[in-house]
Parts: sequence; C-alpha cells; structure tokens
Amino acid sequence: MSFSRPTVHPVQAPPPQAQGDANAAPFGVRMKKSQGTPGTLGGLGLRLAQASFAAASIATMASTHVFSSVSAFRYLVAAAILQCLWSLVLALVEIYAILVKRSVMNLKAAGISSVGDGITGSLTFSAACASAGVTALIGSDVEMCAGNSCARFMAAVAMAFLSWFALAPSFLFNFAFTASRLAALSR
Amino acid sequence: MSFSRPTVHPVQAPPPQAQGDANAAPFGVRMKKSQGTPGTLGGLGLRLAQASFAAASIATMASTHVFSSVSAFRYLVAAAILQCLWSLVLALVEIYAILVKRSVMNLKAAGISSVGDGITGSLTFSAACASAGVTALIGSDVEMCAGNSCARFMAAVAMAFLSWFALAPSFLFNFAFTASRLAALSR
Repeated sequence: MSFSRPTVHPVQAPPPQAQGDANAAPFGVRMKKSQGTPGTLGGLGLRLAQASFAAASIATMASTHVFSSVSAFRYLVAAAILQCLWSLVLALVEIYAILVKRSVMNLKAAGISSVGDGITGSLTFSAACASAGVTALIGSDVEMCAGNSCARFMAAVAMAFLSWFALAPSFLFNFAFTASRLAALSR
Repeated sequence: MSFSRPTVHPVQAPPPQAQGDANAAPFGVRMKKSQGTPGTLGGLGLRLAQASFAAASIATMASTHVFSSVSAFRYLVAAAILQCLWSLVLALVEIYAILVKRSVMNLKAAGISSVGDGITGSLTFSAACASAGVTALIGSDVEMCAGNSCARFMAAVAMAFLSWFALAPSFLFNFAFTASRLAALSR
C-alpha cells in the first residue's frame, strides 16, 4: 500500500442558491420583472391607460348631441365601450396577479388575451379611422363645423387612437409569448 | 483463437436519398412547396390579387367626379396607388423566383417584405375604414346619394378591403418567417 490515494474530504452540500429568487423559481410561477409585460406594474398601467382613454373617448363623443345620427360615431362609441370593458377586466386580472405575486403568463391566458386584444384593437382602430374620415369631411371638406362641435369629434378620435396605441404593446407581448410557446411545443 | 467473433460484412454505403428532392436540398436554396408562401404560384397569385384589387379601387374611385373634394377618398386613392405599386414590385420578384426556381425566403428579404406589407397594409386598411365611414355618412345618414354615386364609393371601399384581405396572408407568412428566423438566431 505504498501508492498515494486521493483523499476525500466530505463537505456539506451547498444550499440551493438563495439570491436571484425570482430567477431560481420554476418558469411560469413567479413574475418576471420586465416592465410592460402582463403581471407587472407596467402592464397594469397599459391596461388602465387603454380603459381610461377609451372612457374619455366615449364621454367626449357622448357630450355632442349629433353623434347618434352618424353611423361612424355610433360605431366609435360601441367599439370604445367594448375596449373599455375588456381592458378593465384584464386590469383586474393584473391587479390580482400583482397582489398574489404570480405570473399570468401561461399559454392559455396569453392566447385568450392576444385574441381579445386583436379583436378589440382592430375594432377600435377601424372605428377611429372611420370617425376621423367623417370628422375631416365635416371639418375641412364641407366646413359645417359651426353647429357640429368639431373639436369634440377630433378629441374623441384622438382618444380612441391613444387607446389603440396603449393596446399595441399589450397585444405584442401576449402574441409574441403565445407564438414562442406554441413554436416550442411543436418542436 | 477459439473465441467467436462478430463477422463483418462490408456493404456499400447507401446513396443519399434521392426522392424528396426539395426537402433534401439545403434550406433556403430550393423552393418549399407550401402554396401561398413567397416564391410559389400561390404567393404570386396573392400579390397579383392585391395589385388588381387596389387598381380596381383606384379606377372606381377616380371615375366619380367628387372624390377629389373629400379627404378620405383622396387618402384612399393615395394608399391604393402605393399598395398597387408595392404589390406589383413584389409580384415581379416572385415571378423571377419562380422562373429561376430559387427561394426568396431569406431573412433580409422576408424582413423587408413584412415591414413593407405592414406599412402598406395599415395605410390601405385605415383609408378603407375612413372612406367607409364617409360613404355610410353620405349614403345612409344624410342621404345625399343622388348626385354622389354612392354605389361607386361602396365598390371602391370594398375593393380596398379585398386588397387588404389578400395582403394579410403574405404579411403573416413573411412576419412568421422573420420572427422564427430571428428567434433561432438569438438562441
């Protein structure tokens, strides 16, 4: 037994890494912290911005007395009501996710959100475009602005566009998440 | 040497699979055959449909004598001209790709196509929505159709929407291809 042997020093097993808590948790359970994605304060802010811009658009349009006689303006009010309700529901979901510190980013939720965002977003965008066309016709083409309160029409159209702009990041996050998960599943 | 040995039968190496020619070729060189994607007859058909619907929309709108006094209709004509030119250029690229039997699906071409499709598509869609709002106002809200040739306005709007519908698959194919390639590169 003159051969040298490697000595064995039994050491205690290192505890699982405690720092970087959110990264160590299994994927999909804890929130990731990139702002703007669903389940963060940025995502909640986007939802609230969508709902409040849509509500401002409805209020501005409803304060004019001729909106109910123009189809495009009625369509804008209907689309903005749908947008406002949808964004409020998703804002409640985000508040819940923030309070319980859980992610709402699973495949089914992101898929439903992206489909709903797509539908309400295209309705809001098309209604805003149609109302903008009518506003431009009344305001600058035939110049009947005196009794028609063009400034309010323009404000309502601008609010609808702002609501749509606030919707775009939410839709893109959800859509990209859904697409990447589906691509990973099909691989 | 009483042990048994495994016998070795030298066999000829099988030739590389010759059937499935398009699949065996290196990716990105030969055309893949799923119809509707760029570089196929379906993709060329989509491009030609976009260009012809946009041209029909321009012709129908220009045949009315009042279109130049309404901003939304002027915007529709401008957007449809841009759409027609863009689709014709890409149709020429597709014809070239079909003639030389090469794929046009590389990352840079698909990225440029999807950005251009996105820009022309949103212009066409918003112009069609604005013109639809004005057409609904003239046609059913204030009923001034007698001298205004509403049927032509409606036809022009419908052609613009059809051009946009034909654009959507091209955009989605290019966008999905670009996104999946970028995701593969960043991995």
